[in-house]
Amino acid sequence: MTLPASWTAPIAEPDHQRMLQARTRQGVLTKPPGSLGRLEELAITLSGQLGTDQPAIDRVHIAVFAGDHGVCAEGISAFPQTVTAQMIANFAHGGAAISVLARQLGATLEVVNLGTVAEVDPGLAGVVDDVIMPGTRNLAIEPAMAHEQLAAALAAGDRAAARAAAAGAQLFIGGDMGIGNTTSAAALACALLDRSPTELAGPGTGLSAAGVSHKAAVIERALVRHGTGRDPVDLLASLGGLEIAALAGAFVGAASRGIPVLVDGFIVSVAALVATRQHPALRPWLHFGHQSAEPGHRSVLAALDAHPLLQLDMRLGEGSGAATAVPLLRAACALHNQMASFAQAGIDGSA
Amino acid sequence: MTLPASWTAPIAEPDHQRMLQARTRQGVLTKPPGSLGRLEELAITLSGQLGTDQPAIDRVHIAVFAGDHGVCAEGISAFPQTVTAQMIANFAHGGAAISVLARQLGATLEVVNLGTVAEVDPGLAGVVDDVIMPGTRNLAIEPAMAHEQLAAALAAGDRAAARAAAAGAQLFIGGDMGIGNTTSAAALACALLDRSPTELAGPGTGLSAAGVSHKAAVIERALVRHGTGRDPVDLLASLGGLEIAALAGAFVGAASRGIPVLVDGFIVSVAALVATRQHPALRPWLHFGHQSAEPGHRSVLAALDAHPLLQLDMRLGEGSGAATAVPLLRAACALHNQMASFAQAGIDGSA
Repeated sequence: MTLPASWTAPIAEPDHQRMLQARTRQGVLTKPPGSLGRLEELAITLSGQLGTDQPAIDRVHIAVFAGDHGVCAEGISAFPQTVTAQMIANFAHGGAAISVLARQLGATLEVVNLGTVAEVDPGLAGVVDDVIMPGTRNLAIEPAMAHEQLAAALAAGDRAAARAAAAGAQLFIGGDMGIGNTTSAAALACALLDRSPTELAGPGTGLSAAGVSHKAAVIERALVRHGTGRDPVDLLASLGGLEIAALAGAFVGAASRGIPVLVDGFIVSVAALVATRQHPALRPWLHFGHQSAEPGHRSVLAALDAHPLLQLDMRLGEGSGAATAVPLLRAACALHNQMASFAQAGIDGSA
Repeated sequence: MTLPASWTAPIAEPDHQRMLQARTRQGVLTKPPGSLGRLEELAITLSGQLGTDQPAIDRVHIAVFAGDHGVCAEGISAFPQTVTAQMIANFAHGGAAISVLARQLGATLEVVNLGTVAEVDPGLAGVVDDVIMPGTRNLAIEPAMAHEQLAAALAAGDRAAARAAAAGAQLFIGGDMGIGNTTSAAALACALLDRSPTELAGPGTGLSAAGVSHKAAVIERALVRHGTGRDPVDLLASLGGLEIAALAGAFVGAASRGIPVLVDGFIVSVAALVATRQHPALRPWLHFGHQSAEPGHRSVLAALDAHPLLQLDMRLGEGSGAATAVPLLRAACALHNQMASFAQAGIDGSA
């Protein structure tokens, strides 16, 4: 199997010397040591990732990867498959949640169209045409994609990371859009974590309890058919989605270019899990934005030893949970860079 | 006892009709219903509080109330009492955490000096001189303040709310500064919730385990002496602090003027608890920004049926946890106001 060179690009460690310096600085700012909690840890980590003693998250690049899923033929989603293409237009026209959040953050937003069953309006602003196939095949009965298609999706993700780097991004957010993709993501998570579909299948966009049971049964069929190998790349081809593969490629691409990643919810975390299985050096570049209400997310986060910044019962995808967490990173940086030290402020220290 | 009229000012209910309209709107936006989780609830509540179908949190007023605590004579804090006055200067000079966060939010920041043992530099920009007494008396051996002083602190809080209203604030944040104030707040919480000091006393700015035990013993002495009445106003005078009383007055003042409040951590939540005991109609105007690492906070939040937006292990005070949560309210408003509906975007609904 030929995978793009970007998929095995070297990933450096964050700069530990900068992190030590940042930790020292946090200890002299005018507050009880440690009292800014996770904001202190964020500032320290970002100092190491960005290689600076004045970390900033001014330039954020958001890439939403969109693709359809053949497994929708099994009736596993509350929404029709036509919605994927319709939502691509909604992203472009500025009406989707991630469009609103990106505007509010002053972030760059691009939508990468990897292939849908319905036609996407041509010439939409901000939509990158990277069509590989008109949606994956039905993973319940055959591999979702061939290795050539997987390689193309990984490369499409890397190109998004390259565009982020070219724009000087200090943070990369990957979002997902694809009706049916919680089925694909749950199947992948089951295979990677050796868990049962009844544990990790959830309501997605709004299935009933009976719908969730049916979804778990569909996943079970897929796992029996081609979920037993443990090679993450093979599993990604068999059970994944175009957008999940592209997300994995994008995260490796971002980290290999020195750009920290803010991971979104369930779908995106599964992509991060696949990528870190292949590339353990990716993990130190990942921040986690939010804990999704989708039940499988908890297990995926635990496997990544990840503790998301937000728990707001969100379950939308699109990168929306990660985007909502960006102001926390910005606050952490501002506090780190702008607070006075005890000495500067002439304040007595602790006894 | 004569308390200011503002303390018993009527508090209207948020506009339920607006909230119903906002809930209907959330149901037609281009996302699975409920998938924005608590951001949807925030937008709905803010619609009712602000009485508009386009809620916005552009203008935020932050008032940090500062005062000293006589109970520091018992050796219950890791920092010397001189720090309160020094931090007032740090707030004014822009070097404190809340100064940085207020700047980043474009919020108005004022510091209300209610009285410190050390002298505060005169003429500091943004410091309101509302000095009542040079710190409270030692609550371990006598009531922290007389009723006249309590009344003055409640009125000082109300004046801060009036300034917020005059500035057109859409959100009020109250912060605290006062070395020793976790002792006062824990004592109040024990008396109001009928809990033991060993349950609610915590490390504050950084006590050792032995220090926390000593602090609990000091609180126990205070409770035995004058913590048995259950009238919240009496308890506030006996066990409170100038800044805690002013916060209570400010919250009633904000809600009576139709301004929602974003509550900070342990100290501020205790003030909110006292105020809601007096004024149950205050509760629907309160949002909760963060869950503090200070252990007593959990019990106070439970008594208020409050579920803070953030859990970041912060424990600084100053209003810093609430300020960190403001972008979540802003995101909620932007999503509510700017997302397209399914009909506008021409997107198929759920099956």
